[in-house]
This record gives sequence, structure tokens and C-alpha cells, in this order.
Amino acid sequence: MNMLVDGEWRTDAGEYTDDDGSFERQETNFRDEIRDDPDARFQPEAGRYHLYVSSACPWAHRTLVTRALKGLEDAISVSIVDPYRDEDGWQFTPEKEGCTPDHVHGADFLRELYVRADPDATCRVTVPVLWDKREDTIVNNESEEIMRMLDTEFNEIASRDVDLYPEGYRDEVDRIIDEIYEPINNGVYRAGFATKQDPYDEAVDDLFAALDHWDEVLADQRYLAGDRLTEADVAMFTTLVRFDKVYHTHFMCNVQYIREYDNLWPYLRDLYGTSGVAQTVNMDHIKEHYYTTHPDVNPHGIVARGPDLEFEAPHDRDELPGSPPSDLVAAANADD
Amino acid sequence: MNMLVDGEWRTDAGEYTDDDGSFERQETNFRDEIRDDPDARFQPEAGRYHLYVSSACPWAHRTLVTRALKGLEDAISVSIVDPYRDEDGWQFTPEKEGCTPDHVHGADFLRELYVRADPDATCRVTVPVLWDKREDTIVNNESEEIMRMLDTEFNEIASRDVDLYPEGYRDEVDRIIDEIYEPINNGVYRAGFATKQDPYDEAVDDLFAALDHWDEVLADQRYLAGDRLTEADVAMFTTLVRFDKVYHTHFMCNVQYIREYDNLWPYLRDLYGTSGVAQTVNMDHIKEHYYTTHPDVNPHGIVARGPDLEFEAPHDRDELPGSPPSDLVAAANADD
Repeated sequence: MNMLVDGEWRTDAGEYTDDDGSFERQETNFRDEIRDDPDARFQPEAGRYHLYVSSACPWAHRTLVTRALKGLEDAISVSIVDPYRDEDGWQFTPEKEGCTPDHVHGADFLRELYVRADPDATCRVTVPVLWDKREDTIVNNESEEIMRMLDTEFNEIASRDVDLYPEGYRDEVDRIIDEIYEPINNGVYRAGFATKQDPYDEAVDDLFAALDHWDEVLADQRYLAGDRLTEADVAMFTTLVRFDKVYHTHFMCNVQYIREYDNLWPYLRDLYGTSGVAQTVNMDHIKEHYYTTHPDVNPHGIVARGPDLEFEAPHDRDELPGSPPSDLVAAANADD
Repeated sequence: MNMLVDGEWRTDAGEYTDDDGSFERQETNFRDEIRDDPDARFQPEAGRYHLYVSSACPWAHRTLVTRALKGLEDAISVSIVDPYRDEDGWQFTPEKEGCTPDHVHGADFLRELYVRADPDATCRVTVPVLWDKREDTIVNNESEEIMRMLDTEFNEIASRDVDLYPEGYRDEVDRIIDEIYEPINNGVYRAGFATKQDPYDEAVDDLFAALDHWDEVLADQRYLAGDRLTEADVAMFTTLVRFDKVYHTHFMCNVQYIREYDNLWPYLRDLYGTSGVAQTVNMDHIKEHYYTTHPDVNPHGIVARGPDLEFEAPHDRDELPGSPPSDLVAAANADD
């Protein structure tokens, strides 16, 4: 595995997997908080913060979706790395379609930002990164925490009145985010990076048991937590939108397509069609990243065709209890 | 590539692919004929011939299906190799489920039979092999030719009156076998063994264009050549039956499953349910072979789960013009 060790870039720091062939995700290391509190070190301010993301990465994608749903595009700037990640880790290749320069520092590699934030950093260099331009450092690089901050701490700055962590739903949202992480969000990685049969089989069993469960739940309610669009849906969305094109084949999660599920597939289209969300999806980056970046999984780097997916096909989810926040409906109508 | 060169086993004889990354299947080398003709060197006789097959291999599988449909089980004996093929090529591992010894010579490796037939053999060691126990040599190792011989030359020995190459259909059968070979039967291999994007894309385009075409054709007729079950159906069957479990994911032929096709999927179930055919399908061997034998495609040899397939689910194909040969219908009724 490539990672920073005491601020030095190392390409020989172990492997993706444990000895038993199962895949373990490492802990993240920058965990400060932006809080809407006059005593906080990091306070919400328009123009102060910057997101480093990969459009390919489902964890980073959560922060992009949240930023879009809240209407924080003008308040929080974004740099997008190259979807192809080689030995040098994530890098900036502004000449490439859908990529940007590092707008803040003009760095060539994302790892430079990590070292800038901590010259002795010992960690994997991951996206998303929430950067504070004023203190010139990383605030946080944990996707769920960034999603939560953008959602709950920027209400006075956000251009849309959208609350993805509403009172009365919070325990349920936390519970669902937690519940779907291991079998679904991380489950596809456990299946795909397994180097032995047993961990693969276990991951696939867990994954499809969980998908089957949520497919049933979504028969009677529009969103995961009930009638409200929440962060739990954002967390589910970024995995589901990658599933049929990538996880299904590349990670051998091939029991069935999402598009074959009675409710998950219309649910996915419903989220995709929610104002602002479709613009965060770069399927070219998603496919290029996975199929070309894991030679251990796909030696020749050939990008599989995958099924045609009509994300914009009509669905009847609006007949179920629940609707998107009114600002999103208004925005969608304004788009028409 | 592993192959015999002047009767010696070589594990360094080039690669699967051409320089342009496309996969080329080599010519077979043993092409004698069994003919129902008193002047022929190889004449049809019960007990004289033996088939060496892999249950995993679609080409070998054609000969097993033909043998079953004709009712040649008692007349032509069969040995089944290990589905896992390593550097030593196909081998006999009789202790393994679904495998047999080499009943004729007790060989450990299939290549021994090739050398026995020709001490200077220079060729890949492939299945199926049609062996003549009397002359102690290989008659033929080309699957279409073996299928044709079993079908047309053993009528006086076969226990069922089944003609898979009927007068009036022969040109059409030959045309279809030829037409489906490159895009479908070999197309999945071209996709799966491509080492560059362009040959993969081309193979996938050809494959699904052909599948779409035949799906349409099969909307109005029960079999590929019309109302008669023919060798063309056998040739199509052994590819289709492997598709959703193997080619779809392992060879990245993932535009859609066969089970998602309106007509190909019931057609596949119709053939599967034809008397004798289901018993020739060893899905465990099929899955083990592909997923574990191509480290260049699937480095860790993990066997993908694949979708559940109800091959025995009802279909309405018998409402279309055409029916199986009456001996097969009688046999199916006797099974019930």
C-alpha cells in the first residue's frame, strides 16, 4: 500500500489485505470539526473552506452531493483529482476532462496537502479532504463527518433550506448510516479486494442480504429513514450509483444488478433526479478509476462496458409518503 | 501458452494474445472422420470410441450434449478431466467430484494421449478428443466435427431416433453454426482475453449485437433454424448456459444477463429441459474452471457468486412452431 510515513511517501507500506485475505479499511487521521459556534476554532464561513475530492470515490461523492443539496457551491470551492490513481496516489491533472487544478496551492499530488497540514503525517492519502484556507490546514478527511458538517453547520450560508439530519430522525439516520456501512458501502470493497474465497463469500452474503432488506423497506417508504430525504440516502446513493457499472463486475458483486431490484432501482433514480444530484455523478471518472486503478483485480485495466442505465427513466416514488425538501422541488421546477 | 512442441510439453510457448491484444484461437490438428461407410478407416461401432472431455469447456460440452440427445451413452464412453487446468494442462483427478480416471490408458495428463497418438505432436492440448480404442489414436479433436459425426454417422447405433442435421435444414444449420461462432461462441473469449480496450470493445459490440439479433429471431420460432432442434442449438446452448454465471462477470460481457433477454432466456431453459441435456451441465466444474484457471484475468482465483438461475422454471416455448424429436419427448415423459 502507498501511504505517508512520517511525512515521506512510501510505496511499500504493506498490502490492501490482512493475512486472512479480508480487506481492512484504515482509520482516518484528521478529525477536527467546523462548528457553528463563536468559540469554535473552525467556524462556518463562505469562501473559507475547500473540498478536495475524486469524482470516482463514493466517500468523497457524499460530500459533493451534500454540498449540492444544500446549495453550498458558491460557499465551498472544490478541486477534483484524476480518477486514475497510480503509485503516486491521487494527483491533479487539470488538462483531463472533469479534473481541476489544485485551486488553493497548485499542488501536483494530493499528498502534498497532507504534508503541508502535518509534516509528519503517517496515513493513507485519501479523499475527501476538507481544507481550511485561512489556517492552511486540513480540517477533516472523514467523509461522514464532512457530510454532517456541511449539512448541519452551514445553514446560514447555504442557498437552500435543506436539512438532511432533521430533528426527530437523527437517531434513525445515524443508525442507518452505521447499519449500511459494513455490508453495503464497505461490503463491495470487502468482496472486491478479498484475496480468498471465504471472505469474498461472506461479503457477498452480507451485501445482498442487506440490499434485499432495504429493497423491502423501500417498498413502502420513499427514503431510508421514512418520508424524509436524509444523509442516510446520500450515503446509500453513492454506492448504489456505482453498483451496476462497477461493483457488480469489477468487484464480482454479481448476484443481481441494482436495476433488477423492484424498489432500489426506482429509489436510485429518484435520488439521481433530485435537484443537483445528477450533476455530481461523473460515470466516466467512476469507471476509469476502478477498472484501471486495481491491477491486482483487473490486470489489463480494461474498462467493462456494463449495462445501459436509464437513470432518468420515470419512477413512481412520488406516490409514496415523503417528498424532497421544498427548496429542492422549487429548484427542480426552475430547472425545467 | 502451454502446448506440445514436437511431442515435448512446453510452458513458455507464447501467449494467449497477439501483439494487438486480441485473442486468437489456434487451429486444431487431428481431423480424421468417422464415416458410416464400409471403406472408411474409422467406422461407427458401439464400444470402439471414447470421448475425453472437460465438463467446463463449451466446445467439449457440445459433444456431450449430442451424445446425450442421440442416446449414445452406452456406445461411446467418456472420461472427464479436472476443471482446474494449471501449467500441466488438462489432467485426470478421479478422486474429485464429477471427474473420472482416463478409463482407456490410466493417464495422468491429457497430453499423454496426444503424444501417444502422435509422438511428434505440436499443438495445444485441448478437449474434446475423440479417441479410437481399436487403433489407439485420436480420430479428431475439433468439437464441431465430432458433434457432426456423432449426429450423422451413428444412427444405427444410437438408442434414440434424433436427427440434429435434418435434410432441408442443413445449409441453414451450417450457416448458423458459422454465423454464431465468431461473435458469440468465440466472442466471449475475445472479450475476456483481450488485453487492450479496443479489441474488448469490439468483441462486446459484436457479441451483444448477435445476442440481440437471435433474441429477436427466437421470438417467433422455437429453435435457431426454425421448428427443428438442430446442432446449431447445441452450439448455442453450451455458450448460453455458461453466460450469466461466468462470461458475464469473468469475461466482462456485462451489458446484460441472458436471463434478462425476453426470448433467449426461455429458449435456454427450453434446451436445458430437453431430455438428457440437464445431466450434461456441471455448473460447479464450469465455475471452478474459468475463475481459477485464468490468473491473468482473475488473479486471486475467487469464484464469483453469480445470479441464481432457475433453469427449470416453466417457459412457454412449446407454444411456438416446433417441437423436440418425438424420441426426446417420449424420454422426457418416461422421466416424469
